[in-house]
Amino acid sequence: MPRAVSDGGEEHEADVASWTSSHRRMDSAQHGHGYKVGFPPKKNLLTEFSDAVRETFFADDPLREYKDQPTSKKIWLGVQHAFPVLDWSRHYSLSKFKGDFISGLTIASLCIPQDIGYSKLANLPAEVGLYSSFVPPLIYAAMGSSRDIAIGPVAVVSLLLGTLLHNEIDPKTHPLEYKRLAFTATFFAGVTQAALGFFRLGFIIEFLSHAAIVGFMAGAAITIALQQLKGILGIVNFTKKSDIASVMRSVWGNVHHGWNWQTILIGVSFLAFLLVAKYIGKKNRKLFWIPAIAPLISVIISTFFVYITHAEKHGVAIVKNINKGINPPSASLIYFSGPYLATGFRIGVIAGMVGLTEAIAIGRTFAALKDYQIDGNKEMVALGTMNIVGSMTSCYIATGSFSRSAVNYMAGCKTAVSNVVMSIVVMLTLLLITPLFKYTPNAILASIIISAVLGLIDFESAYLIWKVDKLDFLACLGAFFGVIFASVEYGLLIAVAISLAKILLQVTRPRTALLGNLPRTTIYRNVEQYPDATKVPGLLIVRVDSAIYFTNSNYVKERILRWLRDEEEQQQDQKLPKTEFLIVELSPVIDIDTSGIHALEELLKTLEKRKIQLVLANPGSAVIEKLRAAKFTDMIGEDKIFLTVGDAVKNFAPKAVDNV
Amino acid sequence: MPRAVSDGGEEHEADVASWTSSHRRMDSAQHGHGYKVGFPPKKNLLTEFSDAVRETFFADDPLREYKDQPTSKKIWLGVQHAFPVLDWSRHYSLSKFKGDFISGLTIASLCIPQDIGYSKLANLPAEVGLYSSFVPPLIYAAMGSSRDIAIGPVAVVSLLLGTLLHNEIDPKTHPLEYKRLAFTATFFAGVTQAALGFFRLGFIIEFLSHAAIVGFMAGAAITIALQQLKGILGIVNFTKKSDIASVMRSVWGNVHHGWNWQTILIGVSFLAFLLVAKYIGKKNRKLFWIPAIAPLISVIISTFFVYITHAEKHGVAIVKNINKGINPPSASLIYFSGPYLATGFRIGVIAGMVGLTEAIAIGRTFAALKDYQIDGNKEMVALGTMNIVGSMTSCYIATGSFSRSAVNYMAGCKTAVSNVVMSIVVMLTLLLITPLFKYTPNAILASIIISAVLGLIDFESAYLIWKVDKLDFLACLGAFFGVIFASVEYGLLIAVAISLAKILLQVTRPRTALLGNLPRTTIYRNVEQYPDATKVPGLLIVRVDSAIYFTNSNYVKERILRWLRDEEEQQQDQKLPKTEFLIVELSPVIDIDTSGIHALEELLKTLEKRKIQLVLANPGSAVIEKLRAAKFTDMIGEDKIFLTVGDAVKNFAPKAVDNV
Repeated sequence: MPRAVSDGGEEHEADVASWTSSHRRMDSAQHGHGYKVGFPPKKNLLTEFSDAVRETFFADDPLREYKDQPTSKKIWLGVQHAFPVLDWSRHYSLSKFKGDFISGLTIASLCIPQDIGYSKLANLPAEVGLYSSFVPPLIYAAMGSSRDIAIGPVAVVSLLLGTLLHNEIDPKTHPLEYKRLAFTATFFAGVTQAALGFFRLGFIIEFLSHAAIVGFMAGAAITIALQQLKGILGIVNFTKKSDIASVMRSVWGNVHHGWNWQTILIGVSFLAFLLVAKYIGKKNRKLFWIPAIAPLISVIISTFFVYITHAEKHGVAIVKNINKGINPPSASLIYFSGPYLATGFRIGVIAGMVGLTEAIAIGRTFAALKDYQIDGNKEMVALGTMNIVGSMTSCYIATGSFSRSAVNYMAGCKTAVSNVVMSIVVMLTLLLITPLFKYTPNAILASIIISAVLGLIDFESAYLIWKVDKLDFLACLGAFFGVIFASVEYGLLIAVAISLAKILLQVTRPRTALLGNLPRTTIYRNVEQYPDATKVPGLLIVRVDSAIYFTNSNYVKERILRWLRDEEEQQQDQKLPKTEFLIVELSPVIDIDTSGIHALEELLKTLEKRKIQLVLANPGSAVIEKLRAAKFTDMIGEDKIFLTVGDAVKNFAPKAVDNV
Repeated sequence: MPRAVSDGGEEHEADVASWTSSHRRMDSAQHGHGYKVGFPPKKNLLTEFSDAVRETFFADDPLREYKDQPTSKKIWLGVQHAFPVLDWSRHYSLSKFKGDFISGLTIASLCIPQDIGYSKLANLPAEVGLYSSFVPPLIYAAMGSSRDIAIGPVAVVSLLLGTLLHNEIDPKTHPLEYKRLAFTATFFAGVTQAALGFFRLGFIIEFLSHAAIVGFMAGAAITIALQQLKGILGIVNFTKKSDIASVMRSVWGNVHHGWNWQTILIGVSFLAFLLVAKYIGKKNRKLFWIPAIAPLISVIISTFFVYITHAEKHGVAIVKNINKGINPPSASLIYFSGPYLATGFRIGVIAGMVGLTEAIAIGRTFAALKDYQIDGNKEMVALGTMNIVGSMTSCYIATGSFSRSAVNYMAGCKTAVSNVVMSIVVMLTLLLITPLFKYTPNAILASIIISAVLGLIDFESAYLIWKVDKLDFLACLGAFFGVIFASVEYGLLIAVAISLAKILLQVTRPRTALLGNLPRTTIYRNVEQYPDATKVPGLLIVRVDSAIYFTNSNYVKERILRWLRDEEEQQQDQKLPKTEFLIVELSPVIDIDTSGIHALEELLKTLEKRKIQLVLANPGSAVIEKLRAAKFTDMIGEDKIFLTVGDAVKNFAPKAVDNV
């Protein structure tokens, strides 16, 4: 099948096959199929526009099921769309429940100590963390479409929220205002999330590049771990800042009289225990439950230990009392007016976006593992609603937790019911046993947090990014150092900035390549990539490796002229024949806009002044359409547009290909 | 030459030729050339990085001439680089001077009345406009590299500056502070421009799309023209706002007692004269000088007329006195401290950028017409320096004027000397004849401005944009309406926002296409574009038309899955064989990043769950390199990566290609 491999070539040929009869003849002569270029059916403005809108906002075609259905059915589908539980609960079985029950218990045992710790990161009372693992998971279970995600407070968002809130209000002096602002932020975080989903703007979070996220997460993890030195070393007056410098200063500043050896003993020994458990879990996936329950066990043991030895009297900081009972209503606490409204909104938007990024990433990962689709926008509505309700029931921002979701998955969860189980356990905890946490030493929570966040440092990804793309790695580092040396929000800013800069760079500086002829063939290749490729005397062949848009049109034009200039300098040195034809290979040029066409026109003018003819090879169909619409095809002349570079060369430098 | 057309196909083949010996054999068998894929020579990190930096910031290779030159020569070249005049002045001849002299006089006659009018747009005294046509052109002549650009105040920047300044200070009540802020803004505009050029950040202005500029310019032109109704109708109390609504309100609000018929008579008649002159000039390019000198003539005639009839006593507003003498120093007036420092900086940056965009666009246009290179970054340094010096010599922001540059070009200017001639004429005007302008009626200036700015409305471009790309046209309209209904700065904001949104959209939503087989060939085509193309039973062939980056990786993955889902629904309806292989055609995929690879991995996992095999066709060399680095090639299996779609089909559905 000799023609199989000539696909690409013929493709572009067909695009321009109908150019001139001579071409068509050549075409037919060569392949015996009389196909001409098929122009996509001319759409009228409305369809063209609505198509663009659909692909942009409704790429996932959410209304698919609604097509040709009776109204009643449509309504029912709409309700199902909002509450997937109505759909999957119908095929729910006992076997599924077994899986959900086990995994629910497991993540509950994991989340209770984490929640208490994370609420400290957010400078909030311990019970608020637990509240946030009770209500939000229930809402999500009804509205969410991920089966594996574990909902609740997470380390990074807690830290971010804590930092941002602390910049506004001091939780020590004004605990109530602080709490109110926290709920306000949570409310607006929810509104942001829901709005993004509702208005189909989910793709906005795609603008945070993977590399930047990896760097940001790792930085946040280290920052959090360092902050836990407060708990582990039992330091009383610790810095409020989160950057590594100030943390280290207050660690060593207290080395002589600020450290408490009992606390250190407890903290370090249990940290060691947790890390060993983690290691075992990693070595043998079947034993995943060991690291999962290790935190709770250490909490119980240490609490009991402190209780009998009364270590708290020897300076071992303990949780003290956690309010008993479930979530009190907090709607009235939200600032819907006054100066804190704007602040709460700002903080909410930022923290909400970060939470969203984390949750969607988790949802997608596990959906891919179990092969079910996640509707990003629907997910956002669910997460948003859950946080809005949360903000009215004394919860702070909840989202999907990496570590707990992984445990949930490994424990064999089948549906969001595992979240329900977890939240029931948390509820019972709140109702019955919170007083028992009184003697839990903070050191334990610190070590639990440390062992948890270490999982956020993704060396593998970082190494992969390094191998695949060095500039990406730079973005990763930027976010990382931004977080640990400056602050979380600053690191986040860097991450976003780098991501956007990278996008803009991609579209401003496309690659171009000089093509040469592979001896004894009519194949033309990048001379850098193929050292044997030889230039054709009197011809210059350049390939543009990107769509030509207003962002790069001038660069492309000037880069091509630079290729030409360098070439001409060589020719003068080596007394080679002057360049008569500049062939621009357009195969990779997917699209072009008015600026791009304008640049081509300027290029044409410049070349005419220099008595050099511009020749185009392999314009794609979108490109040829627009070149025609702009009458550029008439300017350059249709006989200057060729099916392939080989054709053009054959036409203008016959000798060059005689040896084929 | 049957192989000529198989270029594209073989290209990709060669990319993966060395995959498996079987492939290589097939390859050789088909073409007899034993070429294998040439991987670009592995660069070490430093070179790779420095290359990226060079292409981004030094794409034009500015240090080229410096290569292997003695130090003294290098210094000399450096000085020349900063002052091109030293270079071109050496080959300057009398014949060139003739051209420059004529064109210099022409643009001088054009700029004097325009300057007086434009300074009114900026709410500045008339002489400041003339100052700005004296000093800046001299500086530019020494440092600039464009031969055709005419330097001086321009309508749009004057309006923008006037609006922005007016938001801060009222020129009526605080004329001095206003002037000082204007100079401060000019200073920082210059600093911005010079800095952008010096730090090679010139490409930043590329982010303003052509479409947005066309719309913005047209909107500004109409706004300016409307504001001139004040002068033409002789309205005394006119709105300060620039939006069409407020302007119309104050026009009709004054219709009964605000209008002055003598003024209207003068204004309208001379406007008619100017437009006729413009028309003649357009009809017969040889008569370009008629519209060029028409403004000065009408100024002279009308001034004389007013002087003898003493029309100013009948309510015809006149220029009154213009200070005699050349630019007084103003460095001491610039706010280098205090609250206005920040304001001046902000305004300067905005107005400076706009001025830059205009100047660079002009420079490029005429450089292309006469075939010489413009170094964008060098230009910016020249323009910046000229404005910095200007701000210290009582000038406000000067840049390249579209209308005057065109006249300059048509009048046969050869070098920047024409700017020198112009500035000398302006200087003489300032020294000798400014008093004569005392009786010049404002109505004339208004009609001159109107006839000048009408040239900024570029219907042709707008129509072209409409034909080529509807979404682009939408951007154009957005900027246009933003300016005329809201304000200049708001329109500018919209223009920038739309441009960026367009970039982001381009990278978020790439096109994908379903490919089918053209009967009796092994060519695979977009089934939408080629109705004859038929699907191969059991296969689904999808082509991705863009690089796969973090911005679109998830979309691409989910879009492909959607193609598959739609396909499977059809199969169920029509009882067709199930899809066993999903072939992804990667020819147009120029590059891929870690997120893209991650998306492919997720796609692979999902397909494995559905017992569908993923097959790749035509990966480019950059892509294959990264897929290898990320070990994805091992995950999918090298026998799943094919040279062309045709190959893949032959391999997996032999029957389908038997009929070839």
